[in-house]
Amino acid sequence: MGKGQELYKKAKKLIPGGTMLLSKRPEMFLPENWPAYFSKAKGCEVWDLDGNHYYDMCLMGVGTNSLGYGREEVDEAVMNVVRNGNSATLNNPEEVELAERLCQLDPWAGMVRLCRTGGEANAVAIRIARAASGKDKVAVCGYHGWHDWYIALNIGDSDNIKNYQLSGLEPNGVPKALKGTTLPFFYNKFDELKELVDKNPDLGVIKMEVSRNVEPVDNFLGKVRDLCTERGIILIFDECTSGFRETYGGRYKKFGVDPDMAIYSKAIGNGYAISCIVGKTEIMQAAQSTFISSTFWTERIGPTAAIATLKVMEKERSWEKITAIGLENKRRWQEIADKHGVAIRQFGIPALAGFAYESPNNLAYKTYVTQEMLKKGYLVGNTLYACLAHTPEILDGYFYELDKLFAKIREFEDGRDVMKELDGPVCMTGFQRLN
Amino acid sequence: MGKGQELYKKAKKLIPGGTMLLSKRPEMFLPENWPAYFSKAKGCEVWDLDGNHYYDMCLMGVGTNSLGYGREEVDEAVMNVVRNGNSATLNNPEEVELAERLCQLDPWAGMVRLCRTGGEANAVAIRIARAASGKDKVAVCGYHGWHDWYIALNIGDSDNIKNYQLSGLEPNGVPKALKGTTLPFFYNKFDELKELVDKNPDLGVIKMEVSRNVEPVDNFLGKVRDLCTERGIILIFDECTSGFRETYGGRYKKFGVDPDMAIYSKAIGNGYAISCIVGKTEIMQAAQSTFISSTFWTERIGPTAAIATLKVMEKERSWEKITAIGLENKRRWQEIADKHGVAIRQFGIPALAGFAYESPNNLAYKTYVTQEMLKKGYLVGNTLYACLAHTPEILDGYFYELDKLFAKIREFEDGRDVMKELDGPVCMTGFQRLN
Repeated sequence: MGKGQELYKKAKKLIPGGTMLLSKRPEMFLPENWPAYFSKAKGCEVWDLDGNHYYDMCLMGVGTNSLGYGREEVDEAVMNVVRNGNSATLNNPEEVELAERLCQLDPWAGMVRLCRTGGEANAVAIRIARAASGKDKVAVCGYHGWHDWYIALNIGDSDNIKNYQLSGLEPNGVPKALKGTTLPFFYNKFDELKELVDKNPDLGVIKMEVSRNVEPVDNFLGKVRDLCTERGIILIFDECTSGFRETYGGRYKKFGVDPDMAIYSKAIGNGYAISCIVGKTEIMQAAQSTFISSTFWTERIGPTAAIATLKVMEKERSWEKITAIGLENKRRWQEIADKHGVAIRQFGIPALAGFAYESPNNLAYKTYVTQEMLKKGYLVGNTLYACLAHTPEILDGYFYELDKLFAKIREFEDGRDVMKELDGPVCMTGFQRLN
Repeated sequence: MGKGQELYKKAKKLIPGGTMLLSKRPEMFLPENWPAYFSKAKGCEVWDLDGNHYYDMCLMGVGTNSLGYGREEVDEAVMNVVRNGNSATLNNPEEVELAERLCQLDPWAGMVRLCRTGGEANAVAIRIARAASGKDKVAVCGYHGWHDWYIALNIGDSDNIKNYQLSGLEPNGVPKALKGTTLPFFYNKFDELKELVDKNPDLGVIKMEVSRNVEPVDNFLGKVRDLCTERGIILIFDECTSGFRETYGGRYKKFGVDPDMAIYSKAIGNGYAISCIVGKTEIMQAAQSTFISSTFWTERIGPTAAIATLKVMEKERSWEKITAIGLENKRRWQEIADKHGVAIRQFGIPALAGFAYESPNNLAYKTYVTQEMLKKGYLVGNTLYACLAHTPEILDGYFYELDKLFAKIREFEDGRDVMKELDGPVCMTGFQRLN
């Protein structure tokens, strides 16, 4: 057992759930054998606690590092902050510069608030929108973090859990009084949303991901926008995950539909903690009628890293490059799948693309591939978040190894027992209690 | 007008409220003339955007930098993180080391969760405690951040705002359904708390600051502890502000009363964003029955800075030194007040001490002193958060200037008009809308 798994055993005794982010749980990748911890990360390369080297053909910080780990221009700006002071009784000027840049990216917006995590930014946006609308009810589509306002949608109705959202967003500890304050709707089902709005005149906010794994059809986003405008509902696009993957800013720009507020996080700091809420001035000013304030929203690394990241993105047109990388990955996955007659189902926008095996053994195959690719020096799961450091040479090496494993999957499909090839348990999916 | 005020004018157009933290608003110190932004901070010295130099005899990052700004050992550890990668698909090992250290500091605790801001940590602690207790109602005393669960206490009852908490915690945008879920109690009024608990069998959590500006009397903390134990209520001490000021850890250690959970932030990262929830294992495990997860809770600077800060604190016994500095400041404030016959009222524990003038002109005097001390190169407000960089020489200089201004205040008290001496408006206090 490597040092990483040893440390993770200890972690599970010290940290409920073992990690701070569900998506970084070793059991989600390779139970008992995932390296679990890193000592160093650079480009798309990662070193574990034993000094083993891997290429990250996986989540790239769960979406934080679209420029690659340790991008020089960003790190140099952060180093300067460390040298000159991260914190003081006075404010950091970078927060104003970042606010100005964001309003340039979103010309419909006039004001900005900054936080440090995506969950926070979602909760701040909802507070401001509720204060501005004077209404408590919110309609949501997609994933928006761990806070009470959102998880409330799963109180007392397991159908919500199953049908509308990611599985496992258990609402224990969310006040039951919040039941009915957050109402889910399905993506692309405009009539359902309209009915929800008709039935709930006290609904003041619609919050959604621009899209997740499916594209809008039949002018869905335009219709939502028109409905919000007609009814005086505040429309919020949560671009924490999707932002800066296909455009220089929100994914909404692809569809020509402007929200009233938008949220950015993850990629915008290239690995440093920052999240941003932008919005129309008259809505954002409602932040002054309610109490929203936190000490560490004033630290300097967050906005500094975001400014530096935005500059690199603009210079490199990173969103075009990672989309091109993602498109090529999708093409090559299909190519080797077809070659071996392995049925796969792809999902996700190009820069956040992944695939599942169309087989009852999907999770066992995923686990097997993760296990074998790890031995070859690749971190893989079922999704490959593209970054600028994913060079053709590195991708060639990845596909060369993957091709050989798809041949094995063909054998499993033909009757060979995949379970006999696994060195540990099959990977978990979603939320499960750890002991 | 300096560059700082120029930038702040711009900020108020781009950021509702102008700053991310209420306590860093220039209007809270010196409207129209506060330098507002820093370019550099080191030790207890701060440089503004025009290169002017000040000694920070004020909030030291609003409590974040008890070792002083830019403490070498902490910054060197952070630099190493920047060099080796702040983020990866794998987890950072420092989070486990920090969790272990915190459990050593709090031997009654067994598990830890980490966040990046104090508000988040408070909300996570409440979610876990509600999930563990199975009850939604919470009793609170003191300040616990901006989140819905807490600000709910001010819904529809302005008496709560006025009597129980800091002023200005406006609940606009907090769902009205939360009314009554969070119930305030006064410090040192045990009978009132007991009545609250008797009346609310669905109250499962008591959350409080160990003390703020007043000390516990008549074994108040011990009685609260016994009440919680008898009734199966989870007791949480919010040590975000008070931690590491008088002990190596929670202030509760002074009183020999252990909570079931505790929260640390601010000083524990010496200027880098980190917050921690520690608790008894059986309670903390409830985190696995509910969804609590955020991407940037996995970044590496936070726990790394906390580990380095804890090491320096332990080596230097910083809590003893800053308490000694604070005690001496209190003595000298009183000394110059007595010398000039200026009536002042002191407040706060030594390392977070301050004073107000016992005069209807209190805010005008505070503004005047801030204005004049700024001209001499000192940042002051009404509170002086002590840090290791507050050397006797620097304090001598501060008291030398302050002594001269107390002579002026004597003149004002004797009839001279303070308002004629102010270059701008009187400072604001608490929460006011900015235009």
